[in-house]
Amino acid sequence: VEQGTHRLPLEILAELHPARPACVLTGPNFAAEIARGLPAAAVIAGTHAEARARALATLATPEFRLYGNDDPIGAQVGGAAKNVVAIAAGAVIGAGLGENARAALVTRGLAELARLATALGGKPETVSGLSGLGDLLLTCTGPASRNFSFGLALGQGRSMADILAARSAVTEGVATAPALVARARAAGVELPIAEAVAAIVQGRLTLPDAMRRLLSRPQRDE
Amino acid sequence: VEQGTHRLPLEILAELHPARPACVLTGPNFAAEIARGLPAAAVIAGTHAEARARALATLATPEFRLYGNDDPIGAQVGGAAKNVVAIAAGAVIGAGLGENARAALVTRGLAELARLATALGGKPETVSGLSGLGDLLLTCTGPASRNFSFGLALGQGRSMADILAARSAVTEGVATAPALVARARAAGVELPIAEAVAAIVQGRLTLPDAMRRLLSRPQRDE
Repeated sequence: VEQGTHRLPLEILAELHPARPACVLTGPNFAAEIARGLPAAAVIAGTHAEARARALATLATPEFRLYGNDDPIGAQVGGAAKNVVAIAAGAVIGAGLGENARAALVTRGLAELARLATALGGKPETVSGLSGLGDLLLTCTGPASRNFSFGLALGQGRSMADILAARSAVTEGVATAPALVARARAAGVELPIAEAVAAIVQGRLTLPDAMRRLLSRPQRDE
Repeated sequence: VEQGTHRLPLEILAELHPARPACVLTGPNFAAEIARGLPAAAVIAGTHAEARARALATLATPEFRLYGNDDPIGAQVGGAAKNVVAIAAGAVIGAGLGENARAALVTRGLAELARLATALGGKPETVSGLSGLGDLLLTCTGPASRNFSFGLALGQGRSMADILAARSAVTEGVATAPALVARARAAGVELPIAEAVAAIVQGRLTLPDAMRRLLSRPQRDE
């Protein structure tokens, strides 16, 4: 999600190259595993059927399985928002709250993704697929995920400045959280988990306060 | 899923105690974490609103958060089928296929759960909630899950007899897989992952053959 404008990648490309149809490639993929030739699946999402078919034919291999999807909005929301949920999941584990709490948080996180995708014109089914749930699963469980490990360190009580100073790779969710929340607010959607992460990375809320707030939300029907 | 009859728990209870409304308690919960007082969330699912409210009021605590749900079919399918998908997820990791492959498999596994729940009269939303996705996430990622660790050992090449002889706790998915597949077939639903697990535990298919078969399914739109 672009800083300042809160646009998704294909929205930016459509402005820069209006005549050129574009697709997005996204899914639950650690690059190192793909490079080793291990099996993986991902999505090519775009509204232009011919461009999508061309991308599929060009990039798919027997090990790298690609599925077409005509909902680029849902696919992009999943790819961006999962980094934010992963920070929260890491913080839950880092703070010692356990795997039950993480599973509950990620489930609510997926519901947030679905609400936002729908409000922006995407489909909730996309969010239950490879680019949403699949990517969330990968990013929220493996310490190999940069966003999860960032949250983990936060949960263990390290300061954000310390954690970021020690890493060379980009921790996307740190920049994405505030932009995602701004985009959601403009669309009239509430994202409690992303808002908590945005408030933490912007120094407006401490991690213990954020957790107390999420855990004290009223209990109601699912 | 009951052996032989392929019924879900509330279907059995309705026959034994037709006048007594029942609910099901299910969700992403390792019992040991709940016993330690760590935060957790679960679902009370039942069609009888008053019984559901009574169960909620009796069992909920500030740490053990309970959500009502009027779709007991979806909740029971999630609770049963997740054990079967967890065996497959463990096998993928045990065989060294990596986290990308597991994420793809679990995503397809959730789609199987949703198809079956819908065919039996449940709601796909339930399967995206705590009793489906949440429980799947917990069961398919932690070696603390008996079903996942069973699949892990299978994937590492140990025989089923050896693995089961070494454990005292029940590995639910081993018995559930064939019963779940039978119930799904009676409802006209195909479950490729559960069918592969059932064939493996019944000795009708080897693990490498099952993986080849799942990975060679035709690539198409998501």
